[in-house]
Amino acid sequence: MPKIAATHWKEYLTLNQERFLEELKEFLRIPSISSMADHREDVERAAAWLRSRMEAAGLEHVAVLPTEGMPVVCGDWLHAPGKPTVLIYGHFDVQPVDPLNEWQTEPFEPVVRDERIYARGASDDKGSLMAAVVGIEALLEAEGALPVNVKCLFEGGEEGGGGAEGLVVARREELACDLVLNADTSQWSETEPVLLLGLRGIAGLGVFVQGPKADLHSGTFGGTVQNPIHALAAIIASMRDADGRVLVDGFYDQVRELSAEERAEIARVPLDDAEFMREMDVDALYGEPGYSTLERKWVRPTLEVNGITGGFQGEGGKTIVPAWARCAITCRLVPNQDPNAVVQAVRTHIERHAPPGVRVNAGGGGGVKAYEIPGDHWGNRAAARVLTLLYGRAPYATRLGGSVPICNVFLDALGAYSVGYGFGLEDENIHGPNEFFRLSSFRRGQEAFALMLQELAVTVTS
Amino acid sequence: MPKIAATHWKEYLTLNQERFLEELKEFLRIPSISSMADHREDVERAAAWLRSRMEAAGLEHVAVLPTEGMPVVCGDWLHAPGKPTVLIYGHFDVQPVDPLNEWQTEPFEPVVRDERIYARGASDDKGSLMAAVVGIEALLEAEGALPVNVKCLFEGGEEGGGGAEGLVVARREELACDLVLNADTSQWSETEPVLLLGLRGIAGLGVFVQGPKADLHSGTFGGTVQNPIHALAAIIASMRDADGRVLVDGFYDQVRELSAEERAEIARVPLDDAEFMREMDVDALYGEPGYSTLERKWVRPTLEVNGITGGFQGEGGKTIVPAWARCAITCRLVPNQDPNAVVQAVRTHIERHAPPGVRVNAGGGGGVKAYEIPGDHWGNRAAARVLTLLYGRAPYATRLGGSVPICNVFLDALGAYSVGYGFGLEDENIHGPNEFFRLSSFRRGQEAFALMLQELAVTVTS
Repeated sequence: MPKIAATHWKEYLTLNQERFLEELKEFLRIPSISSMADHREDVERAAAWLRSRMEAAGLEHVAVLPTEGMPVVCGDWLHAPGKPTVLIYGHFDVQPVDPLNEWQTEPFEPVVRDERIYARGASDDKGSLMAAVVGIEALLEAEGALPVNVKCLFEGGEEGGGGAEGLVVARREELACDLVLNADTSQWSETEPVLLLGLRGIAGLGVFVQGPKADLHSGTFGGTVQNPIHALAAIIASMRDADGRVLVDGFYDQVRELSAEERAEIARVPLDDAEFMREMDVDALYGEPGYSTLERKWVRPTLEVNGITGGFQGEGGKTIVPAWARCAITCRLVPNQDPNAVVQAVRTHIERHAPPGVRVNAGGGGGVKAYEIPGDHWGNRAAARVLTLLYGRAPYATRLGGSVPICNVFLDALGAYSVGYGFGLEDENIHGPNEFFRLSSFRRGQEAFALMLQELAVTVTS
Repeated sequence: MPKIAATHWKEYLTLNQERFLEELKEFLRIPSISSMADHREDVERAAAWLRSRMEAAGLEHVAVLPTEGMPVVCGDWLHAPGKPTVLIYGHFDVQPVDPLNEWQTEPFEPVVRDERIYARGASDDKGSLMAAVVGIEALLEAEGALPVNVKCLFEGGEEGGGGAEGLVVARREELACDLVLNADTSQWSETEPVLLLGLRGIAGLGVFVQGPKADLHSGTFGGTVQNPIHALAAIIASMRDADGRVLVDGFYDQVRELSAEERAEIARVPLDDAEFMREMDVDALYGEPGYSTLERKWVRPTLEVNGITGGFQGEGGKTIVPAWARCAITCRLVPNQDPNAVVQAVRTHIERHAPPGVRVNAGGGGGVKAYEIPGDHWGNRAAARVLTLLYGRAPYATRLGGSVPICNVFLDALGAYSVGYGFGLEDENIHGPNEFFRLSSFRRGQEAFALMLQELAVTVTS
């Protein structure tokens, strides 16, 4: 389909919308599953497709860059001297599609139903990524220029395989920028926008408890040696009190308590505990006393066992005292916790609580610290103005309980904060069957990117 | 090979020993693995082989009897009016042979090395079973009669598939007897015999903890809902104190405490804790304070988790709050604990300790009560005299931590106590690779059965 010219970027978006939707479908047909080795070529095809599409949008220096993991596609437009430089981040790889039989239509044959486009990757993250490219094209085609300098970094390894973080560190000079717009986030609802002020960090450990040298008959030997499952259960039980407060010495030492104002902002975000309980199908919520559900999700650290294994694994029984048991633990971290300090505190706790008669090994390390951007950062101020205009109401100040490590890399390596600027919603089945993206969000996202680049041109960046 | 005649049973055993060994090899070549469906025919073949062999020994009414599980082979010789009736029990099915690559020779091609015969089932239990049959044959061939009435019940489902227990109950009149000799037990060492005074019982439960309806992202949701692994760990940790004493209300209520004399008898059995620790490769033994290692193994009840599963099972990590966790628990029981009462006490404990926010289901039942035979029972007195003669020293009074449910069935259905009368030793790798049976034990077992039948003819059975 040919481009249809227009004299205003907004008119350009309207006139070319049918083409944009067809192009999004083309993009969604490429099964760029980065976590599966036999889809490696599809990730490459998606990268090549995106390179062409970015060139067609008028971006320059567009290139597919190899990394230690999956390819990254970069491009820029740097003809706005004296204006800020904005790096737009998104990803073009997707999650696997299992269980395939739960999809109502083929995951890689996009279908529009009820103003929603159904396909793997529609919401996470090809839809928002394409909205950014299309917004750039509209400005360049209709206005002849972008209002600010723009760099794009679209990665193919967000869902698996990685590579982008190392590339950002290695190419920190080329990627230098004043702000990142992160298209891999979401809004609160169709009518409620958000400013994303923080992400929790993460630190993980594996715990291995070695008991007797082999599985023992629980009749012949039961009562003589420590059972590694009981030892591990005792260790796990020692780590939290009945209410969910973590009992590891020093665990909360580095936590920055939120101000009354920050807590009031969170309290403004609507979450109905009763409705949330129904969604989770539990008869009670649970967690650290003194904090609301959203505070526990967003700004309080956690310690959770993610998996435990020991002894006989089948249904029914096998009467053994097992030789070993193990579990995997992750902690979600908040400002200003240091991942290594948390891992060390948990290790020390485990060593102190290891009962006699077993050998306990707790290993871990690395991790990602929490990410935070001030609510009144100039990037957020600009975003708030644009989102208020588009949605007709001011955004909530929200956070995410999960981690997006590349935000830390942008901050550490480039010195640039990331503003959450994606347009998916939480109900769009990302990572599950029947993923979809609202066409209204696709269109609003295009406008939002164009408006944001204009807004950043007139924002005081300090 | 033809039978070689003799005028004394002992001489008969000596003259025919080469044939007995060849016959044992034939028996061992049949891979009668009862727990594997594709070996069902081999179990039948072993039954047919045994029927012929029992007939050749001079037993009468020999028949392969179908059961709800695996076949049982019965036969008798009932021409000693006024004398006691003795039922000899053993089994001709065997354990699987995995891991096959750890066998030094083929498990079903018996090989004699260093006066030991290596094959699956050699020690458990074809060797001792054959010793009984051969002992009977020697008495019948050399003496022309047995000194007591004998019934044989050899089962094909002890290691899996069962069937014998139901058959004993259904045929309680035909199987009526005064005493059982159980050939599926062992001696302490090549020089130290035992009287087996007790077996622990068993009761089991499965515990299932249901948390949220599906696995949740531990970032997005961590801190809001109860984690079923933590809930299960807390439940498990609540069931025992740090020393290993069970904290379930009422758990010890029905336990008969041993007399000082019984404890002194156990103290006479040699067990070196340091050596035992080396064998287990642990740096400390563990269990209920105030009892020796053998007491904890034999006469104290236990509560052990045999297996636990929840959340991510691979190596490494997957950051979820899992939807569920489960474990399997078994308790080993001692006199006079009732299995149903113990299961109910554990269920009540679990229900009381189930934290909010999860649904906990603990199911179980059935079970087997502990078995006990008085040390001065006339069967034991007879066995003690024979074993003292054969080994040159009095037997230890021992017990077993495991359960042999058919002993309870013999007692309940037939009113007959079982005397442990097998000749394997604990180091003979039963259930593992390279199972073997000592030829000295095979020969001693033959003599032991013949002598025991003679001894029982002159024992005061009251």
